[in-house]
Amino acid sequence: MTLDRAEPAARWQRIAQALREDITAGRLAPGTQLPNETQLAARFDVHRHTLRQAVRQLAHEGHLRVLQGRGTFVRELVLDYALQRRTRLTENLAHAGERATRELLSHEQVVTGPWPRALQLRAGEAAALLHTRASVRGRPIGLSLSAYPQALLPGMAEAFAATGSVTAALRALGVQDYQRARSTVSCRLPTADEADLLARSHQEPVLVVQYLSHDGQGRVIEAARTLFASDAVQLSVEHG
Amino acid sequence: MTLDRAEPAARWQRIAQALREDITAGRLAPGTQLPNETQLAARFDVHRHTLRQAVRQLAHEGHLRVLQGRGTFVRELVLDYALQRRTRLTENLAHAGERATRELLSHEQVVTGPWPRALQLRAGEAAALLHTRASVRGRPIGLSLSAYPQALLPGMAEAFAATGSVTAALRALGVQDYQRARSTVSCRLPTADEADLLARSHQEPVLVVQYLSHDGQGRVIEAARTLFASDAVQLSVEHG
Repeated sequence: MTLDRAEPAARWQRIAQALREDITAGRLAPGTQLPNETQLAARFDVHRHTLRQAVRQLAHEGHLRVLQGRGTFVRELVLDYALQRRTRLTENLAHAGERATRELLSHEQVVTGPWPRALQLRAGEAAALLHTRASVRGRPIGLSLSAYPQALLPGMAEAFAATGSVTAALRALGVQDYQRARSTVSCRLPTADEADLLARSHQEPVLVVQYLSHDGQGRVIEAARTLFASDAVQLSVEHG
Repeated sequence: MTLDRAEPAARWQRIAQALREDITAGRLAPGTQLPNETQLAARFDVHRHTLRQAVRQLAHEGHLRVLQGRGTFVRELVLDYALQRRTRLTENLAHAGERATRELLSHEQVVTGPWPRALQLRAGEAAALLHTRASVRGRPIGLSLSAYPQALLPGMAEAFAATGSVTAALRALGVQDYQRARSTVSCRLPTADEADLLARSHQEPVLVVQYLSHDGQGRVIEAARTLFASDAVQLSVEHG
């Protein structure tokens, strides 16, 4: 815990403030590894214990990440991804001042298993399953598996590949609006493949968001699961 | 991926169905380790590859957890924790047919650092910080740090200790209703202390939910952070 009973603006707080300003102003860039404790303590001319209090405070605030045995890093990107009725990845990131690119990694048609079931398809009806990756500033932040009813939305993979956007692809196929009914959120460690695709260690957990989307007629048009790299994305829910 | 193009009710699907029924009926209890692949394949009289497909399917559905190098386990408890305007831990779990107990691990008063700031206290005003643990069926599922304005709500720690409930403690102190404004959700690996308190491995990630609560007059009466064991709790958001 970083809480103490010291007077306001104790020494560690002034150090935290200086580092915080360096980070928020971009003088310490996202992903930068900080010098080790001894060096930093020397730079600020304080005891290591004092320096450590400042670092803990900034880790608590999310500005720094302390990775056991690897060092302390300026937190990379923390994109605030709003879970709401009309959740759009691209719009969400634009709101955070970031531009996301989405690429189609692969696609297939499936007629059995969890995806057709989630889409409430009848036996034998196919789902188009798209495997996509979202990146910001060239850095992967999310992986999605999203399924669409093939009969209702033929050409979804091609439309996505052409536009790089689910919203644009659905619009091209005649779906002007769609809404999420419910999202569930869990977390786990990524598989080796997932970690590779996210360009991260398999020791860094991912947020797992599962959701269904309906069109204006209440039909399930999308069943999806997105993994977000937890160093890059946090979810927010307005209870408004 | 567990998706394939086989005929409906392929052999692996029948095995998955049999295991699913054993799990949902409680014949395979939460936390149980499954026999190894060779033994299970022999029991169902199928090739290991077929058995593996069934296990992957059940892992995908959340019924099983495959822990690298440790084996395959029946998922313990998956409590659905609804993030909403009036989020109450006890009510949420009662809805899932579970009774949660909450215990006070420690409490302190703090006048500096992130908690008084989150509560929007003036300089020098104290926050009461409660460290609590929630358990279901005797198994820890969550750890919370929650801060309350000391001047407005004197005796919060005692009221919580007496009732085991934030809602009941606030009511005893005159707060009849309170609401969450916004929640943010992230995930990370737990610290060694957190893992100990949750009785889990430090390799099992935790969901981190941070939130503020307001009373009827719009005053911030609670700033809190809850860690949920990710094998036990998933979050849900209704967008309706």
